[in-house]
This record gives sequence, structure tokens and C-alpha cells, in this order.
Amino acid sequence: MTDFAATRALFHLPEGVIYLDGNSLGPLPLAAQTRVGQVLREQWGDQLIRAWNDSDWMALPARVGDRIARLVGAPPASVVTGDTLSIKVFQALAAALALAPPDRRVVLSDSGNFPSDLYIADGLLTALGGRELKVVAPEEVADAINESVAVTMLTEVDYRTGRLHDMAALTARAHAAGAITVWDLAHSAGAIPVHLEQADADFAVGCTYKYLNGGPGSPAFIYVAPRHAGVAQPILSGWLGHAEPFAFERGYRPAPGIERMRVGTPPIVALSILDAALDAWDGVDMGELRAASIRLTETFIREVERRCPTDDCGLALASPRDPHARGSQVSFRHDHAYPVMQALIARGVIGDVRAPDILRFGFTPLYLSEAEVVQSATILADVIDTRAYEAPEYQHRAAVT
Amino acid sequence: MTDFAATRALFHLPEGVIYLDGNSLGPLPLAAQTRVGQVLREQWGDQLIRAWNDSDWMALPARVGDRIARLVGAPPASVVTGDTLSIKVFQALAAALALAPPDRRVVLSDSGNFPSDLYIADGLLTALGGRELKVVAPEEVADAINESVAVTMLTEVDYRTGRLHDMAALTARAHAAGAITVWDLAHSAGAIPVHLEQADADFAVGCTYKYLNGGPGSPAFIYVAPRHAGVAQPILSGWLGHAEPFAFERGYRPAPGIERMRVGTPPIVALSILDAALDAWDGVDMGELRAASIRLTETFIREVERRCPTDDCGLALASPRDPHARGSQVSFRHDHAYPVMQALIARGVIGDVRAPDILRFGFTPLYLSEAEVVQSATILADVIDTRAYEAPEYQHRAAVT
Repeated sequence: MTDFAATRALFHLPEGVIYLDGNSLGPLPLAAQTRVGQVLREQWGDQLIRAWNDSDWMALPARVGDRIARLVGAPPASVVTGDTLSIKVFQALAAALALAPPDRRVVLSDSGNFPSDLYIADGLLTALGGRELKVVAPEEVADAINESVAVTMLTEVDYRTGRLHDMAALTARAHAAGAITVWDLAHSAGAIPVHLEQADADFAVGCTYKYLNGGPGSPAFIYVAPRHAGVAQPILSGWLGHAEPFAFERGYRPAPGIERMRVGTPPIVALSILDAALDAWDGVDMGELRAASIRLTETFIREVERRCPTDDCGLALASPRDPHARGSQVSFRHDHAYPVMQALIARGVIGDVRAPDILRFGFTPLYLSEAEVVQSATILADVIDTRAYEAPEYQHRAAVT
Repeated sequence: MTDFAATRALFHLPEGVIYLDGNSLGPLPLAAQTRVGQVLREQWGDQLIRAWNDSDWMALPARVGDRIARLVGAPPASVVTGDTLSIKVFQALAAALALAPPDRRVVLSDSGNFPSDLYIADGLLTALGGRELKVVAPEEVADAINESVAVTMLTEVDYRTGRLHDMAALTARAHAAGAITVWDLAHSAGAIPVHLEQADADFAVGCTYKYLNGGPGSPAFIYVAPRHAGVAQPILSGWLGHAEPFAFERGYRPAPGIERMRVGTPPIVALSILDAALDAWDGVDMGELRAASIRLTETFIREVERRCPTDDCGLALASPRDPHARGSQVSFRHDHAYPVMQALIARGVIGDVRAPDILRFGFTPLYLSEAEVVQSATILADVIDTRAYEAPEYQHRAAVT
């Protein structure tokens, strides 16, 4: 049995805070502090350049990738870490397009995808020419997969609503139509069980600063199905994706497998922090995590709605009511979402908002208790009931929401 | 006057080591240790997601960019940090191509460019089609700039030999021929005075883990001349290059200036370390740095050659003999470069090798003294004189050189 009291003790959780924003930035793992001190003083400081060999820095992107692979249902040596999620989307989409039937013109995505994925696709497709990005409503994706589609590019869990796509079904449908799939796991990795291999996914990408607690702007990851890894063309053909980077050959020869998706010099300090953060997952069963997550989200919805009926409070559930149709977050719409969230944060309940009207709360069994969830529902109801959010100090909009 | 004894005290330099590899990985600045502790505990740890506003994390890529701008002769708000150098080469080259006359087919580079720049150009040009990468010898670059050239893509200082291109002259020649310039400053930034604005450079990119001491795999930077910054097309059109990332609009609208060259969520811990590392440059005059660097490299060449004449030792200077024609490194060729370097490292003199036969030594006045340079020349001569490099333990080739 996963011991969630034990995992909670692995994090620094400030006094007086109920943290419901681990879906945006996970909290500091205590192991990260220890590790970063070692990496700076003992590796960078004392070993200097020798650390590339002596501390095996060069293998870190793949080593950390293997630890993530386990959490997303991927086999060893199929995941590598580095760069940012937007960069990894670019790489995956370009490689997917090169594998898709050349006469297909459509990259299919949906309006629940994270804007950066769509922006990146726009930038790539404009540069390549000859193809178009088609964006449909999330519920229309399945029907829109037809023989015009080269690649489906979908985020499994909607960043606003938490709506969960059926990865296995959509992948099967895409393959039946002859398309290649790119899955974004930003709100899946560490949030829900993911079965990349079982679902027969082609490419997947994800970030590590949310549920994996890798720290602000921590490195992203990319998965390439082993059947593609030896043929996928890296458009970002950087030297560390070369078969022999230190041969300094004139011509690019991609590494045999997933390592070809590496690009530049790996961010060692950030990767080391992420590696330490992943220690928290060592004893975690993803099925038990999912069960605990559902208990937390169900409790939150029930407790909020009990205290705050829609007609009285103006709060409307924006997430699917069926827990199996959502990820590990719960969103409510409210006309005053921004000041409501500021008032909540002032009372120690930290979530975030997504324009224009979404209050977003992430639920993370690794460090969040049922009692905290009940308490946060009470505070939310109170903020709305007393119109505390109308105070002038909550109206000023910060740069980052 | 720059006080190089004071700057030396800002670094952790292990006992018994003469570090001549700051051109590959700069040593640990003590300020980085303090800063990383603060960022982890006080910002990430205590502020959690609020740190994006409360600690102004979102502005860090531009704020650190401005500090680098001063070191490379660029105006404020023309440099932004993030990603890796290879990614920044890709961005800059794509944007340069979009600004070049559309009928020009050639991207011109030279065989002294770092292989990753050439690999990245290959990957981009293959994807775009219709253009070719032409690689000439470094000394043939000027003559090869003609009206077929869309973009020149050059590294100012050769990573193997230290040979220095004349940025102003080549840029003027490129402009006269109607071409756009991309300069890679990997071995220039913090090594020599760079005058991007004065030279009228169009795009420049660089890394920060060498002479800027930002740590292993620290973020790269990109410069876009202010005249281009409002029109340059970001091929890597990630959300943080958007004019309003948190509006989460469907369509990509690039930010007005250099910020459009941002891509994904910035690596806050790594950027904070880099920011702290840049403190060492606060009182440094780049002209005085250059004078001190030339004193060090001249001393090294003189002391090595005095003790180790080419005919006796098999050491041949691979760097230009004229100090004004080279950067802040000195390279010697030797048939047994790899074991010679291993023997040197075992004796506390750390440099590196570049295949097949280059012994490479970086000279960094910020933390390196004349006495150390003389001593390292003595040790090099001794290693060769006594054939110490023939010992079996120096023959094994590590993964990373």
C-alpha cells in the first residue's frame, strides 16, 4: 500500500497553506535541497569539467527519463528529458509529420489543448508549408479523425476543465485512419495512470514541474514508441542527439534510439533537482494514487456544492462530474473568478485561475489530505457567501495568473 | 581598474587544481550557492506558485539578458535568456532566413563552426527545403560572401583553435552583399570584448556555462538587433513569446520585441544561478579583461615553447600566434593529445581535448593568475618530456572529452 503520510513528509509545505496548485507548480521536495547542495559543491564545484564523466552527467537525461517512463507506462529507454514542453511539442510534431502519409494535409487538435501547443504547431506548419492545423471541440475529436489527418496532437487532460481524453480509444481510431499520434501529458504525468505502451501511442511529451514536482521551469520529457525511435527524424538535430557527439563529425548522424531527441547540453542542476523530486514516487502505486485522487476531487466537489449551491453562489462545476472522465483537478466557473482566487489565497488556500472565469484546483494525494480538502471547500464557500472577494485589494490583476 | 584578485575570491577553486577549462565549464561562483538556497527555500518552497509574481520570476529571462547585453555590446532589451545554444541557433537562423531575400539559396558557414550549429542548420534547412548549407574554410569566408548568400552563420571564436573572426568586417561584407548575419558567441561572451551593436550584427546567440560561469547546461541567450526585433518571425512560437501569454488566446501574437524569442516556461533555478554568477562581472572592464587574457595566453605560449620546442616534443601551436587573431584560449596539436591531457589532469592541470589531436586550454583572468599559467606550462613540458602520458591509466577514453 502506498503510504501517503510518508510521501507528504518528503515535501516542504509552508505553515497555514492548503496547496491546491500542484497542477501548476509542485511544492519543494526536501530531497531537492540536499541534492542541489551536493551537485553544486561536490560535482560542479570540486569535480569541475570532470563531472561529465565522474558524476555521469551525460547520462542524466536518459536516467531521469527512465524514472518518468515507469510513471507513464513506457518501457525503459523510450523517454528522454530536457528542454521545455513547447520545444518537445515541436520536436514530436515534426517527427510525427515526417512519419505520416505525405499526402495528408491536416494536423488535428482541439480547443481544449494548451495554447502553446497550438502556437507551436502554427509556427512549425507555417515554416513547413502545405499543411493546416484543424482545431475542433474536444468532444468532436473522435469524429474528426479521418483519412485527411496526418497527425493528431492532443493533450490528454484539459488544462482548464480537467476533461480527460480516452487515449487508447483515440489512438486506435487515429491508427485505423492511418494517422500518427502526439500526446501531451502535461496534466497526466503524476496525476493519473498513463499507459503509453498499452495505448500504442506514437509520441508523447510532458512537463515535470506540475505533478512531478521538479521545480519552476524544470526540464520536459519526450517519449517515442520504440518502433519509431530508430527512424524518427529530429528536426532539432543538436549535437547531443548525434550518435557520437564527441567525435565532432561534420555530418549529423542521429543516435540509434530515443537519445536522438536530445538537443543541447543538458541542464544538470535542474535535472538533478528533478531526479531527487522523483524519489517521492518510488513506492507509489499509480492505481492507488488514482483512487486517492478521485476521493479528494469527489470530496471537494461534494463539499463545495453542499455549501454553495450554484444558484446562490454563482459557482458552476466546469469539470466533468464523472471522476473517470477527468484528471486530478476540479474547476468551477465564477463571474468573479480572479478576485475570488485572490481572496482564497489571502486565506491560505492556493489555487489559480484561467481566463476568463475558471477557478482551478489541483489535487495531489502525495501531500494533500482529505481534511485539507474539506477545509478549503469551507473557505471557498465563506469567501463567496460573505462577498469577501469584493475587497479592493483583490481586484488588481498580477502579470502571471 | 578591474581587481582580478577580488574576482578570484568570488569562485570556489579546488585546492591543487589549475583550471584551464573555464572555456568549457566555468567554476562555481560562491554567490550561486547562496542564491540557489534562497530560491529553493524562500521562493519555490515558501512562495510556491506565487513566486511567479512575488519574486518576479517571469521577468528573469529578460533581466538576466540585460546583464549579458552589457558584456556583448548590446543595448538593453535586446537579449533574452533560455533554452540551449542549439535551440537558439535554430531560432536565430530561421528568423534570419525569413528576413533574407527570398531568392537566395545559400546559408554560409565555415568548418571551424561548432558541429552542433551545422547540424542544427542541416535539420532546419532539410525541413524547410530549397536552401543549402555551404561550409568553407574559415579563411575563405570573406570571399565566399556573395549575392547567393541569404545568411552567414559563423562562430566568432573557433572552438578548436581559438581563431577569431573579424565580426565587424564580415558583418559589413555580408550587409553589402544583402545577407543577414547570425553570430555564435559561445567562446566570445565573457572571453573578449564583443560589440554587437557597433558591428551592426543582426542576430547573435551564445551560451553561459563557459566564460560566464552559469553552471553545467545553464541557459543560452539570443540577441536580435532592435531594427529586427519587431518583425523577426519566431519559428519556435511558444506561449512565453506571445504578447499576452496569460490571455490564453487561440492565435499566436508575438510579443513586441526581443521577448518573442522566449519559448517555454523559464528554468528559474538555472537562471537564478546564472544571475548570481553574473555578479562577478559587475566591476569588470572588458578592455582590461582582454589585456589580462592576452597576457595569460602569451605567457602560456612562450613558456610552453621555451620548455618544449616543437621538434623535440611534438607540440605544435594550433592557435593563431597573433593574440589579436585569437580568443581567450590556446590550443596545441599533439599526436597523443588524449593521454597527454589525462596525465595533465592527474597532475592538477585541467584542460580538455578536441578530436583528433587538439590540446585545448582556456584562460580566464577572473580567477587565473600568471603564476598558475607558468606552472601549468612547466607541468605540460614535464608530462611530455618524461613521456608520463604513456602510462596505461591514461589510455582509456572516457565518454565525454
